[in-house]
Amino acid sequence: MTAPGARASGEDDLIARYFRPLATDAGAFGLIDDAALLKQSGDDLVVTTDAIVEGVHFLPDDPPDTIARKALRVNLSDLAAKGAVPAGFVLTLALRDAKEEWLAPFARALGEDATTFSCPVLGGDTVSTPGPLMISITAFGRVPPDRMVHRSGAKPGDRIAVTGTIGDAALGLRVLKGQMSGEGLDTSSREFLIQRYRVPQPRNALAVAIREHASAAMDVSDGLAGDLAKLCAASGISAAINLAAVPLSEPTHALVTKGQSNIESIVSGGDDYEVLCAIPENRWDSFASAAARANVQIADIGRVESGAAAPRFLDAKGQSVALKRLSYSHF
Amino acid sequence: MTAPGARASGEDDLIARYFRPLATDAGAFGLIDDAALLKQSGDDLVVTTDAIVEGVHFLPDDPPDTIARKALRVNLSDLAAKGAVPAGFVLTLALRDAKEEWLAPFARALGEDATTFSCPVLGGDTVSTPGPLMISITAFGRVPPDRMVHRSGAKPGDRIAVTGTIGDAALGLRVLKGQMSGEGLDTSSREFLIQRYRVPQPRNALAVAIREHASAAMDVSDGLAGDLAKLCAASGISAAINLAAVPLSEPTHALVTKGQSNIESIVSGGDDYEVLCAIPENRWDSFASAAARANVQIADIGRVESGAAAPRFLDAKGQSVALKRLSYSHF
Repeated sequence: MTAPGARASGEDDLIARYFRPLATDAGAFGLIDDAALLKQSGDDLVVTTDAIVEGVHFLPDDPPDTIARKALRVNLSDLAAKGAVPAGFVLTLALRDAKEEWLAPFARALGEDATTFSCPVLGGDTVSTPGPLMISITAFGRVPPDRMVHRSGAKPGDRIAVTGTIGDAALGLRVLKGQMSGEGLDTSSREFLIQRYRVPQPRNALAVAIREHASAAMDVSDGLAGDLAKLCAASGISAAINLAAVPLSEPTHALVTKGQSNIESIVSGGDDYEVLCAIPENRWDSFASAAARANVQIADIGRVESGAAAPRFLDAKGQSVALKRLSYSHF
Repeated sequence: MTAPGARASGEDDLIARYFRPLATDAGAFGLIDDAALLKQSGDDLVVTTDAIVEGVHFLPDDPPDTIARKALRVNLSDLAAKGAVPAGFVLTLALRDAKEEWLAPFARALGEDATTFSCPVLGGDTVSTPGPLMISITAFGRVPPDRMVHRSGAKPGDRIAVTGTIGDAALGLRVLKGQMSGEGLDTSSREFLIQRYRVPQPRNALAVAIREHASAAMDVSDGLAGDLAKLCAASGISAAINLAAVPLSEPTHALVTKGQSNIESIVSGGDDYEVLCAIPENRWDSFASAAARANVQIADIGRVESGAAAPRFLDAKGQSVALKRLSYSHF
């Protein structure tokens, strides 16, 4: 993003009007330079990049403020899972046009989340596209040297924890797509599920505790089952998950009870943006206390096991349940 | 980018097949984690992000290898102008489908340029889109603390320099669009201009010299005239440019001579990806020597002047030429 010159272009006007007010960090140079600066601080820098595309990650009639929040939060979720403290972000915004009624609430919400999560906008690029809207964000977080939390590192015997609740967002998308009968879903439950799809709740409040206690961690974005399989592969271990322990919200639990959803589809749905991590047994109590202090709900859903087998998902009787699908894939 | 899990998805397969072989840097973790790592080094980190969109920044039938190179090089050009040494990049790739015949040459060329410019791939995101292809890259460069070169800082009396030649890429685009009559353009000239459009030549070899000698710098991407106006605005100065001194390639010069182009459109065309900088008079000789050693052509095209007026463009008689358009804008 660059400033208006002596004679401003439309692109420069757009940036000056909507995004410069957000660029309060010294490293953003008020968006009047070609680049941003992350000052050396003695910390390592964790870098994550995630894009969201209209019609794929959000719906064409989703409100612009929720689109902005989702674009940033899917990246903040990665930083949290890596134990990193947010340092800022850059964004690429591909737009068909530059409409005030879309850009104003988009930029306002982006700025609010930047403040909420102490993750300032540092720069970006605005391009025109004849196609769907797309927002690509690269976010930066700081960790002390060599302290980034990896997917690898889980050890047999570790407890497997997940934050928040699982499955809400995938159900919210079904509600938005009209694939969910209204039966048994009151207005507030519908709204809750839709909001969980549109506005993830990244667990940055837990980042330092994850860094201090987790042997491995990742964020759950493509489905708990598939993402767990990735963590197992990276760590060279297996796992057993107690499906009854997977944390469900009230609305999701009610839908399962009524047969409108089931645990298999819940653990393979996407868009959760919760943290999945492995916690050594002797660290569990400290981790649980830190989570309580951070006001982040955690659930103990299983154990890391040795071996290279795919993770097992067990029902209440301890029987292995075969999952048809593990996760969402773009291709 | 993430690794294949126990059962790989199509997206994971794509990443493993085409991009993991490129991810040789330790901070990329073989693309099997949620994030990449830039180790603390005592340097500040310069961050730039630029996206290219099919039909806007490249043509639908441009070869995939040139698209890859352009996507990376437009970002490398920003790093060069800021005096930064490349440290790595992340990319977002928005694809309609995952075709071997497109992805294989794209990834191969990206890897070659990453090696050529010592700018390793650290990670990324691959998403599906129903719309045009888009590649968004965020690139990182290192500078010693507080040594990033800014757009601001130019002082009255400084010489204004530009690297390479100006106007070739915009003419190459006209050739590709069939807007340029064949008259007077031999095959090698056509190919030269097309190549200048498709594959910019970032001036990273000059980065350290820019850092050591320039009072201000930026890369020329939207047109020399408009970009100079931005540098002037950021520095709070004006400038006088000698249009006859603007460096032209042989093919571009020939087209001007034949009346198929003119200097006004040359200085307002985009896609040059050359460096524009201000060099204090007493630094000129050292800068010129460093450029010669780096094998980068530089031209002295004018002087910084005091005042807040828009930069003036002078013809061979010293008369001010009014430009209809300064630069390209997306909106």
